[in-house]
Amino acid sequence: MKVALDAMGGDRAPAVNIGGAIAALRLYPKLEHLFLVGDEDILKEECAKQGLNLNDKRVSIVHAPEVIGMSEPGAKTVRRKKQSSISIAMDMVKDGRADAFVSAGNTGAAVAAATLKLRTLKGIDRAGIASAIPNEHGLCNILDAGANPEAKPEHLVAYAIMGTAFARHVLGVKNPRVGLMSNGEEDEKGTTFTKETFKRLRATPGINFIGNVEGHDLFDSELDVVLCDGFVGNIVLKSVEATAKAVSKWLKAELKGNPLRLCGAALASGAFKALKEKSSYETYGGSPLLGVNGVVIIAHGSSSALAIQNAIRVAVETVEHGVNPRIEEALAALHESPAAEVIEA
Amino acid sequence: MKVALDAMGGDRAPAVNIGGAIAALRLYPKLEHLFLVGDEDILKEECAKQGLNLNDKRVSIVHAPEVIGMSEPGAKTVRRKKQSSISIAMDMVKDGRADAFVSAGNTGAAVAAATLKLRTLKGIDRAGIASAIPNEHGLCNILDAGANPEAKPEHLVAYAIMGTAFARHVLGVKNPRVGLMSNGEEDEKGTTFTKETFKRLRATPGINFIGNVEGHDLFDSELDVVLCDGFVGNIVLKSVEATAKAVSKWLKAELKGNPLRLCGAALASGAFKALKEKSSYETYGGSPLLGVNGVVIIAHGSSSALAIQNAIRVAVETVEHGVNPRIEEALAALHESPAAEVIEA
Repeated sequence: MKVALDAMGGDRAPAVNIGGAIAALRLYPKLEHLFLVGDEDILKEECAKQGLNLNDKRVSIVHAPEVIGMSEPGAKTVRRKKQSSISIAMDMVKDGRADAFVSAGNTGAAVAAATLKLRTLKGIDRAGIASAIPNEHGLCNILDAGANPEAKPEHLVAYAIMGTAFARHVLGVKNPRVGLMSNGEEDEKGTTFTKETFKRLRATPGINFIGNVEGHDLFDSELDVVLCDGFVGNIVLKSVEATAKAVSKWLKAELKGNPLRLCGAALASGAFKALKEKSSYETYGGSPLLGVNGVVIIAHGSSSALAIQNAIRVAVETVEHGVNPRIEEALAALHESPAAEVIEA
Repeated sequence: MKVALDAMGGDRAPAVNIGGAIAALRLYPKLEHLFLVGDEDILKEECAKQGLNLNDKRVSIVHAPEVIGMSEPGAKTVRRKKQSSISIAMDMVKDGRADAFVSAGNTGAAVAAATLKLRTLKGIDRAGIASAIPNEHGLCNILDAGANPEAKPEHLVAYAIMGTAFARHVLGVKNPRVGLMSNGEEDEKGTTFTKETFKRLRATPGINFIGNVEGHDLFDSELDVVLCDGFVGNIVLKSVEATAKAVSKWLKAELKGNPLRLCGAALASGAFKALKEKSSYETYGGSPLLGVNGVVIIAHGSSSALAIQNAIRVAVETVEHGVNPRIEEALAALHESPAAEVIEA
């Protein structure tokens, strides 16, 4: 399959993008072709520097002279910068020249471009980002992690269906457990918004809805999908990342406190390395934007080469398992169910 | 000063409550008297078990035959169980028999009892819980951490004023920095609710409003108060706690992986202990419920004796620095300012 990479997107582009591309081409044989989308001169120079051979038939540059900055307003900028790497790469997915798009660039712009150019799937009103955090049992997908900050109850029902399809068909979870993020586990906890959403989720067939969950459940419980609006999801995700980073930093500072501890830390360094690998978003790489008519993978703005490499892996896996046809099947089944009237109201 | 302790509140009551009481009586000379509010027979037995001498003039039991369960609905249960430890202790604060109340029991019930019995301060519509998390520079207070899940913009303006008074007068921060929790740092990020709140905060005199902040800022930035509705605050707080716990747990599991690592961990154990102390809510103990006419400190439901001890310390410090008169002064000044019309609309 063919993947288009936003080679200019992210805080450390294009160096980490090219680094990630090199690793992905080596590691993922299913990646038949990788398009590096971005400024040709800059990319040629970076490829030469890192030793990526552009005569390789599996890789090519697609020139895109414009770049969308990380803090430019999403939709507006997409409309204005028609020659940006995000716009051009999204057109490639739309035209079928690429099977998937991976970007560590401006998330708002990527979401806007995907919605404008690819359109949402039939029956889907708003796309959502599924961001994975590692827990005791596997991966817990926070959906939505930021595409739709002011979601409505019906959007979260659609997220439940899409998250279930993604966890089942891409991550291989048999009967994905879906929770609704709230300020307590009891059924009656929450806001007007979550209470209405709760009622609809309870009535939705084809999902394994386990009820309200809270922050404490993110790591302990066998949770595969945690539903929330994009405002809450974005805050949770960043808070979790920030905490893991702060705890590691404090521990390192404490370990430097005296020679005995430093010595101990050296002996135990393998454990720290394993922890870093487990807890870092780099390992998970990319978050699918679910609900658009194509495969779009959103990577972290501060992605490393490893994160880009893994985001490309997620793109390959998402295309391979055909998640969009599965979502459409599930939505069609829902639409025909007797509960549809309540849920889709 | 005199503090009333909910001796029956919390997941591990009354054992940890009595344990915390013993430590607090020993460590805090300003604590003139501690009332243990709860079932007399049970408390007498627990005091005997732990060696708390009830002939000590600084401590006494106040009988409260009823207990409010951790998952009972707050306001409703407070109205029904008039002889609960929460109700009786709150009456003591109302009557001036106690200067402060500390509870690790049902938060919803404590907030409801405080609001019903003590009433809010003049100019305050809704109380908020200020929960501290440790960061690089000191303590970052999340306000509101769960008292008011569906807050309005004017509530967050009041929280800004109250959080500023608390950080300044109790925590000794000269010019507390106040941020608004959002899904990005840019001014234009956020929801309809946060955008309206942002506008009002910008117009509010007497606070040091630094703009939108995000999850990543919790630990890195010099932030003293982070404003959010109680739904978001509760989720953030629990997610941060859960992450710190998960990271420690994973690291321990990794360290047990082989004998060399175990040996290293033993040498570095002081660092782990210091980290636990820094990152645990036990060290911070209790969160003031700001905005009610009295001092009420909310402790974690799963409080240990150390957490109870520290919650009593926070109560002593909050009374000592007279935070409520300072809040009332600040509100009076705001009310007289030209900006009042915009902010209080």
